[in-house]
Amino acid sequence: MNLQREPLLTPIRVMFFDTDAGGVVHNIAYLRFIETARTLLAMKYGLDWECMKKTSIFPVVLRTEIEYKKSALLGDLLEIESSLGEASAARFHCHFKIYRPTDGALIVTSEQVLAFVKMPEAKVQRLPKGFPDPFFPQVGSAIID
Amino acid sequence: MNLQREPLLTPIRVMFFDTDAGGVVHNIAYLRFIETARTLLAMKYGLDWECMKKTSIFPVVLRTEIEYKKSALLGDLLEIESSLGEASAARFHCHFKIYRPTDGALIVTSEQVLAFVKMPEAKVQRLPKGFPDPFFPQVGSAIID
Amino acid sequence: MNLQREPLLTPIRVMFFDTDAGGVVHNIAYLRFIETARTLLAMKYGLDWECMKKTSIFPVVLRTEIEYKKSALLGDLLEIESSLGEASAARFHCHFKIYRPTDGALIVTSEQVLAFVKMPEAKVQRLPKGFPDPFFPQVGSAIID
Amino acid sequence: MNLQREPLLTPIRVMFFDTDAGGVVHNIAYLRFIETARTLLAMKYGLDWECMKKTSIFPVVLRTEIEYKKSALLGDLLEIESSLGEASAARFHCHFKIYRPTDGALIVTSEQVLAFVKMPEAKVQRLPKGFPDPFFPQVGSAIID
Repeated sequence: MNLQREPLLTPIRVMFFDTDAGGVVHNIAYLRFIETARTLLAMKYGLDWECMKKTSIFPVVLRTEIEYKKSALLGDLLEIESSLGEASAARFHCHFKIYRPTDGALIVTSEQVLAFVKMPEAKVQRLPKGFPDPFFPQVGSAIID
Repeated sequence: MNLQREPLLTPIRVMFFDTDAGGVVHNIAYLRFIETARTLLAMKYGLDWECMKKTSIFPVVLRTEIEYKKSALLGDLLEIESSLGEASAARFHCHFKIYRPTDGALIVTSEQVLAFVKMPEAKVQRLPKGFPDPFFPQVGSAIID
Repeated sequence: MNLQREPLLTPIRVMFFDTDAGGVVHNIAYLRFIETARTLLAMKYGLDWECMKKTSIFPVVLRTEIEYKKSALLGDLLEIESSLGEASAARFHCHFKIYRPTDGALIVTSEQVLAFVKMPEAKVQRLPKGFPDPFFPQVGSAIID
Repeated sequence: MNLQREPLLTPIRVMFFDTDAGGVVHNIAYLRFIETARTLLAMKYGLDWECMKKTSIFPVVLRTEIEYKKSALLGDLLEIESSLGEASAARFHCHFKIYRPTDGALIVTSEQVLAFVKMPEAKVQRLPKGFPDPFFPQVGSAIID
């Protein structure tokens, strides 16, 4: 299943705490940018915090691939383009590209695989029928792992 | 009540992710160093993770004061000196000094006030009689404010 | 000198990486929120990234006091109120309050003392005459201690 | 070229700031664990901080793949097994496995591709002949792409 929705654009301003002594954005900081973008993407699809806390079902990252193409710098205004990708019975993919609009540079590309997991027993939940509409698993949905 | 035990010494090596584009350790990174030192200090006094998770009683920082005296640099091997300070019915103080042993520089001084709090209801727990021996509140201990 | 300008309001959405296993926002995460707010406050006063990088003069936190009043939670939309406070020859204060607008709760109060420091020699710069207008020290300004 | 040296074992204790509201170690925290392990691995091979700062040549992560197999918890004592892998003219691979020795669980596997880059011009440096002995590029080594 390929989802053809519009990607979400999330602006991020590079802060001091995002940089390192090499003078550039630290490689780990981009993962925070991506989590912020992914959370806003999930909100767009109806992610419900209350439901997450009540059910103890949380989106969990199973795999990350990230490629660092160019360096971003202190004060840069970056833009993260995020979109949902393929989904299977219990996993879905997210795709990310981080650009610097001022010069059009592609800074980072990344892909993540996620699942919904019931904590603390760590049971993977089946995605709801019709995912991403609705996006969040039903409480009591069939559990696979 | 003043506790006259030996301070605990915790070595920390400065990593890239601790630094920023100013070329020095970022001010927030020291708070991670201090949390690491404080956790090891609490373990020395018998902090019990299992008990923490079972009771949902957690040590919570109520207040931090931190003074930045000198800059530490990438690769520096720092030493954190931590000790328990005053305690009242429900709060205790921790004191920290961060040194760079190679030149004896005092990098940071800090003081934190903590309490044990039962989550998610956020109820402050009375410190056990004889604190810090024992260190962790009894389950079912009197709850104040 | 007391500055009577309007405080700046900065909204922050609490992400997973801001929380901890206690189920609430981790105490260190608020320092990131505050740095973001402080950076935007400084931008409002004309902070110039280019100038910072060219001159190697950076704003440096000398002291932080932070008080944790209430817990914020995953998904909370918080608001940081930031304002400039007193200034002396080479130091200035910033004041922060973090609120949760949905219930009006005051979550955190904080005060920071900062200076402009020329790196890597770590020389404190005199604030420009008329600070915060202009905000950033002149290159070649008198250097004190 | 495959390097058959012994992997380095690095112990890491899970702190509060490593966990999230899902009750487990946050996915980004493992990247800090891996950076710590990688830095110690590089030190074993003779990484020279002084040289890094003097030459402005820094190890830079070009690509990360990380797979999350099981959840680690607050207080867990984890062990990171790190080793150097393949190397080409200007890039080298590092491999990581994170275990929890108490139950033998494999928590995370990861691979990173790195290069030495001269900052701020971001020029990739040729690896020294005989890499990883010596490990750090010579100042003035041939610069490629």
